[in-house]
Amino acid sequence: MEFEDVVRRRRIVRHFKPDPVEPDVIEHIMRITQRAPSAGYSQGQSFIVVTNPQTRRAIGRLCGETDDDPSPFRHHWVSEAPVQVVACVSEAAYHRRYQEPDKLRPDGTEIDWPVPYWWFDIGCSCMLFMLAVVNAGLAAGYAGVVDFGPFRELLGIPEDVTPVGVMPVGYPDKDIPSPSLARGRKGYEQFVRRERWDAGES
Amino acid sequence: MEFEDVVRRRRIVRHFKPDPVEPDVIEHIMRITQRAPSAGYSQGQSFIVVTNPQTRRAIGRLCGETDDDPSPFRHHWVSEAPVQVVACVSEAAYHRRYQEPDKLRPDGTEIDWPVPYWWFDIGCSCMLFMLAVVNAGLAAGYAGVVDFGPFRELLGIPEDVTPVGVMPVGYPDKDIPSPSLARGRKGYEQFVRRERWDAGES
Repeated sequence: MEFEDVVRRRRIVRHFKPDPVEPDVIEHIMRITQRAPSAGYSQGQSFIVVTNPQTRRAIGRLCGETDDDPSPFRHHWVSEAPVQVVACVSEAAYHRRYQEPDKLRPDGTEIDWPVPYWWFDIGCSCMLFMLAVVNAGLAAGYAGVVDFGPFRELLGIPEDVTPVGVMPVGYPDKDIPSPSLARGRKGYEQFVRRERWDAGES
Repeated sequence: MEFEDVVRRRRIVRHFKPDPVEPDVIEHIMRITQRAPSAGYSQGQSFIVVTNPQTRRAIGRLCGETDDDPSPFRHHWVSEAPVQVVACVSEAAYHRRYQEPDKLRPDGTEIDWPVPYWWFDIGCSCMLFMLAVVNAGLAAGYAGVVDFGPFRELLGIPEDVTPVGVMPVGYPDKDIPSPSLARGRKGYEQFVRRERWDAGES
């Protein structure tokens, strides 16, 4: 698909058809996702692909699904998706990389990380993933992980890896758009400034 | 351009031809960039487009360029680019959004932000920007901002907005690839796990 068509069609989806997704399609999406950049090529990003129905239901519950309340979106949209992709990032991988000789400061110490690039980079990866999903004719949602511990326990994730969010993937069904979208897109002139932040302001 | 071609062609570039880039092309790129998602549609992401040669040189210096040392990449690649796009994010915008009634917890308090989504979201935006740049036949680099204060002063950025990084943009010239790439891409089996993190491990 044309790049701009992919971007324009991408949106967060919260209702999926039960049709399974071919493993090859998921692998193709993940190989595209692996092309996201990372600070110092630390590559702290990883993903867990979950299709097992019992695990998907357990992940749905960890994302707030309950038997009596199928979320404001009227569906168990996290567990109903045939595939869940759990985005993970290892902060430790960044510290290890930036303790290598070519990344140390002249005084031999690790940089201070004014920007925690592990969060930035997993954002890059998830963005690329969401676009690759649309390019494959599928759709994805996003549920943030609130409590890391139970996810680590459920999926055998080590302590130094953070499960950041769950992206349910499948063929999209008609869903209720997020009420947040009613806020509207902010003006282009607030989004992009020219030469200075305050240019044009008195 | 086809989505997958854009992804495959994208890489960080650190040498640019002096040819200017049409403002319409930059605006087109930025309008695509504005389609990145954000937590609760907070839209804390903003960008400053700098073309003024004096400001570009000042930004280059803040990124470590000196008169006698044109960086390990043998070019003043930050300041030589005809356009610099400074990625900014406002953490405050996220707190304001999540203090609105529909985002408060049942006890009336703001969420704890186990993942600081302002960094994740500006990563999403920068990823989309870098792809849009390639789609426009251009290339971009990335220089992280180390010290926020001087950038805020130079560009009139408010205290509650963080200048995260500078993305020089232009027509690519032959450059020296980052030595970090010699690390090689990590194995697909380390990048993607199936069903559990430790599946397949004993």
